[in-house]
Amino acid sequence: MISPALGGAFHIEAIHPLVDGGRFPVKRIVGEPIEVEADIYRDGHDIIAAALLWRREVDRDWQRVPMQHDVNDRWHGQFVPCQLGRHLYAIEAWTDQFATWRHGFELKLNAGQDVSLDALEGAELLSRTAASDQVGAVIQRQCQLFLESGDYQALLAPELMAAMALAQPRPDLTRSPALPLMVDRPRARAGAWYEMVPRSQGRTPGQHGTFRDCIARLPDIAAMGFDVLYLTPIHPIGRTNRKGRNNALAAAPGDPGSFYAIGSAEGGHDAVHPELGTIEDFRALVAACRTVNLEVALDIAVQCSPDHPWLRQHPNWFRRRPDGSMRFAENPPKKYEDIVNPDFACDDAGSLWNALRDVLLFWVAEGVSIFRIDNPHTKPFRFWEWLIREVQLRHPDVIFLAEAFTRPKLMKGLAKLGFTQSYTYFTWRVQKWEIEQYLRELTGVPERDFFRPNFFVNTPDILPFHLQSGEPWVFKARLALAATLSASYGIYNGFELLEHRPIPGREEYLDSEKYEIKVRDWDQPGHLKSYIRDLNQARRRHPALLQTNDLRFVEINDEHVIGFIKRSLDGRNTVGVAIALSGEVHDVWFPLGDTLVEVGGELKPPVAVENLITGERLPVQWGGLQLRIDPARDPALLFQCLA
Amino acid sequence: MISPALGGAFHIEAIHPLVDGGRFPVKRIVGEPIEVEADIYRDGHDIIAAALLWRREVDRDWQRVPMQHDVNDRWHGQFVPCQLGRHLYAIEAWTDQFATWRHGFELKLNAGQDVSLDALEGAELLSRTAASDQVGAVIQRQCQLFLESGDYQALLAPELMAAMALAQPRPDLTRSPALPLMVDRPRARAGAWYEMVPRSQGRTPGQHGTFRDCIARLPDIAAMGFDVLYLTPIHPIGRTNRKGRNNALAAAPGDPGSFYAIGSAEGGHDAVHPELGTIEDFRALVAACRTVNLEVALDIAVQCSPDHPWLRQHPNWFRRRPDGSMRFAENPPKKYEDIVNPDFACDDAGSLWNALRDVLLFWVAEGVSIFRIDNPHTKPFRFWEWLIREVQLRHPDVIFLAEAFTRPKLMKGLAKLGFTQSYTYFTWRVQKWEIEQYLRELTGVPERDFFRPNFFVNTPDILPFHLQSGEPWVFKARLALAATLSASYGIYNGFELLEHRPIPGREEYLDSEKYEIKVRDWDQPGHLKSYIRDLNQARRRHPALLQTNDLRFVEINDEHVIGFIKRSLDGRNTVGVAIALSGEVHDVWFPLGDTLVEVGGELKPPVAVENLITGERLPVQWGGLQLRIDPARDPALLFQCLA
Repeated sequence: MISPALGGAFHIEAIHPLVDGGRFPVKRIVGEPIEVEADIYRDGHDIIAAALLWRREVDRDWQRVPMQHDVNDRWHGQFVPCQLGRHLYAIEAWTDQFATWRHGFELKLNAGQDVSLDALEGAELLSRTAASDQVGAVIQRQCQLFLESGDYQALLAPELMAAMALAQPRPDLTRSPALPLMVDRPRARAGAWYEMVPRSQGRTPGQHGTFRDCIARLPDIAAMGFDVLYLTPIHPIGRTNRKGRNNALAAAPGDPGSFYAIGSAEGGHDAVHPELGTIEDFRALVAACRTVNLEVALDIAVQCSPDHPWLRQHPNWFRRRPDGSMRFAENPPKKYEDIVNPDFACDDAGSLWNALRDVLLFWVAEGVSIFRIDNPHTKPFRFWEWLIREVQLRHPDVIFLAEAFTRPKLMKGLAKLGFTQSYTYFTWRVQKWEIEQYLRELTGVPERDFFRPNFFVNTPDILPFHLQSGEPWVFKARLALAATLSASYGIYNGFELLEHRPIPGREEYLDSEKYEIKVRDWDQPGHLKSYIRDLNQARRRHPALLQTNDLRFVEINDEHVIGFIKRSLDGRNTVGVAIALSGEVHDVWFPLGDTLVEVGGELKPPVAVENLITGERLPVQWGGLQLRIDPARDPALLFQCLA
Repeated sequence: MISPALGGAFHIEAIHPLVDGGRFPVKRIVGEPIEVEADIYRDGHDIIAAALLWRREVDRDWQRVPMQHDVNDRWHGQFVPCQLGRHLYAIEAWTDQFATWRHGFELKLNAGQDVSLDALEGAELLSRTAASDQVGAVIQRQCQLFLESGDYQALLAPELMAAMALAQPRPDLTRSPALPLMVDRPRARAGAWYEMVPRSQGRTPGQHGTFRDCIARLPDIAAMGFDVLYLTPIHPIGRTNRKGRNNALAAAPGDPGSFYAIGSAEGGHDAVHPELGTIEDFRALVAACRTVNLEVALDIAVQCSPDHPWLRQHPNWFRRRPDGSMRFAENPPKKYEDIVNPDFACDDAGSLWNALRDVLLFWVAEGVSIFRIDNPHTKPFRFWEWLIREVQLRHPDVIFLAEAFTRPKLMKGLAKLGFTQSYTYFTWRVQKWEIEQYLRELTGVPERDFFRPNFFVNTPDILPFHLQSGEPWVFKARLALAATLSASYGIYNGFELLEHRPIPGREEYLDSEKYEIKVRDWDQPGHLKSYIRDLNQARRRHPALLQTNDLRFVEINDEHVIGFIKRSLDGRNTVGVAIALSGEVHDVWFPLGDTLVEVGGELKPPVAVENLITGERLPVQWGGLQLRIDPARDPALLFQCLA
């Protein structure tokens, strides 16, 4: 309910930002100003005042900043959260009785009316105001001054007006409900993700890769400029009903099985697969990542292989069939005999939920503060809302990425209830119109306030049709689109090597490493590593690319070239992007329209642009740019606007 | 808060209709279907069901109707309230476990899988369902049938599916908050109002008119087709500081004073001015109105003359100045010495509020169920919210019209907190673009759900500039605009006589009858009575004109002709309107676009139109109409679309 409680003297309405009337938290980044607007009004013509209140959920006292009136009863205020975690904000409004009196008094004075009684009424307001500090001193002094001298000016002194604004009684104070706000760290909004299958990082064919092999890969990955190293599940893999290569029902001897069949005699969600190494090796990997500015993200899949210790320790967490047999996961008529799902509604749900929370807390203690959650859309909303809250109350820096490829409202619902970031439909959006339409949705209100996209060009499960040709320009264009449209984006290893062999007719990888061990030559000719490096370096240098809210598409008269302009929150960094969506050479006009660049507090139209990759400069002519895009060289042009 | 309580298994969002997240009631008319929509979804792929709940606020039990899924998790349902007053509605969602089981079972069956265990699980669901009535009988019978025969068809019987949909347990039932709804009578939405100053209804110049004189006027007013006879205040008028003609500070001997200076030795808000007659005479007027299908509306102004009995009976309801003198109403530097306002925040506010409520209840007992409230925007919101609720709980048929000409959000705020109808800016909207813009706002969401406009062409306080020329075509055009754009509209007596003498340079009447007694010749040549009659008869015959929601402007290639199409709620009545906004002859093309008319359940494009006044028919050609408008004859063309 966004309006004041019944009986409030004020209406406080149309508050922005706000998600579902305050049911779900708005998301913002620590250290960045938060602008809050609302319609605030009461009856009559008295002068009113309003304040914006805010505090951390765990704190007791509110902080306050005054709000300003814009026009037509619209007010705004701003504050900057300096700590992470759940916050609350609210709006207070009250009548400034003294300012109202003062206004009327001056009008009468100017109209030459007898104001002796009005003056006494003003003095009455002063005497009714109890304040001890200097503010109170000012009020008492001016009151005295008037009573002794009878000089009206004593009542009109500006410092008295200010003192009364602070100290006078506020009998009709009305407060909006407290509204939730989640303050995250910058990585929650922006980052370049590299998804890696640890067991495929070895050098010897057929040999299981280890955490040590992963460490050996770090310089290469860091050099590409990635921020997050995201590992597919690292837990012991079950043997019962283990899947074979290409998802075959029966595994051949030596098949490693799917790392999503979690749990074996060696342990469950809080253990590491022995062939990858020990927990110490994992710690070494986390430490090594830190040294090259990489952060480890873990893939958490809430599902168990039939060999998971929980099945013995907590049989009541799992449902059985009428004949007493285990109920395997299924999506009729499909069956997944290598997986059983815990029953979130079982009689012992409390201990199950706690155990899952403790799994996350275990990995947080091991230095992991980013979790990519597998298929959250098949588990209860209330579980996620509880789990994310439980973890973030203790560790407000933890980031949750929802790997949900499902119906739009369900994906948004998960973002609302607390997921920091979300997978998106970008992976399948290829036409100019559908990319523009989708980005307008994600950057619009209210989506922009709760849904943070993370654009993946591919995943272990998805080799989209448009990549199956293997043409370098397509890989580059998809990379550039993901890296520039969205502040967070990611690739799944092999993309940089243009891997594109599908299961015929499907959008899936042939010989997927979900079911086998791969060994790759990471320096294979034609790789895109330097292209990726250039893009990621451009991102790091240009804050305009590290946010997904301020995005404006420009009219480009070529349906196979998409163009847009992004501006950093502080307005000081403005970047233009043009990307070819087809392979031939494009000569296009890129209109800069009313684009303005902030220079020393002033907004000016750009006079030139500088290529983010080549550094080459181009003057702005006739309010735009004549661009030539040769996808064979580079399908994307990124430039900064200079004024 | 429009989403489910924390922990709900479902998200129930984007509910429509809804005003400020449920803080304020949605407004609808008794006997008309209410369509409710919402996004409803939960995790996973189970089959879900939803119901729309509704009840009167005073009732205990909910009524339920099933909701249907449209697309993309959007659901809708419909109910028809058959009683007046405050209602509540809510949405419930739950998982249809049996339908989900049945769906999977069929898929496996068709895939030729062994479903023996699944069948037993289905039977388990049946046995877990406790129902006694016939529904229960069906369930037990089919369960038996299967257990004895082992025949799967017993579990797939359609009647079993229906029975389980009704009777099965709903462990994850989620309910939205209960949302408020006000159900009014049709007059709340549509009516033609005639505002009349009772004391000016006499026949002898200089002589005070009476209720009996008013009764004599009824046949004439009824013949014009008005629905509501709205009387300016009828209470005793104060003598102290009485205003003279044209609002002169001092009244000359014999001046009747302003009827807004309410209260004298003869009584206050629950008394009638002796010169108008007795309370019996008033009852006679109310009764006489009934016989000609007119309903009396009273003008309630919460203000007192210095002679009002309340000043003696309840001195503590009024504020005094430091010298003990009475505090008169003022709007600095303006003073209103003939009026004092009660202090809604006085220590004895409770008894003041009750007294004001009792004034309304008194007049309700006298047969009045429409109140036009004077200047509600200068009294506390919480007072009105309380007062309207108090009265409508006892008399849900009572209609409150807010006479607030103030800032837009304040006017909307009053409508939200409970006023049935509202005055508008129509009185000053003359250009085509500003009329279209304003109507789009009023007929848009959410305004259409809580703000019901009542368009007045003039009032005792407002003689708009555009009427001051006195040209008949302007009066006709304004009348036609008000009567066709808005379901509720009104005129203030004298309009039908083209009265237009202003205070020079002001939008006010010269020699306003607010301060003197007038006697008019109601049959004066050139009067508009037959024109008004035709318009009101057309309104009564055409439900499309008795609603303000379904309104679509059409492109007319003449900035001085405005055109629009209205459709009745049931779609069976479609009316087109074209009105000239300048005096010359206009030849315009009126495109009917994709207008459709409902004929026997079918939607068809119109083939002809029939003039609502002349009955003349015109065929539709090339999807539109070629119209000639001669304002000298009639600036408005109203026609019904026929298919």
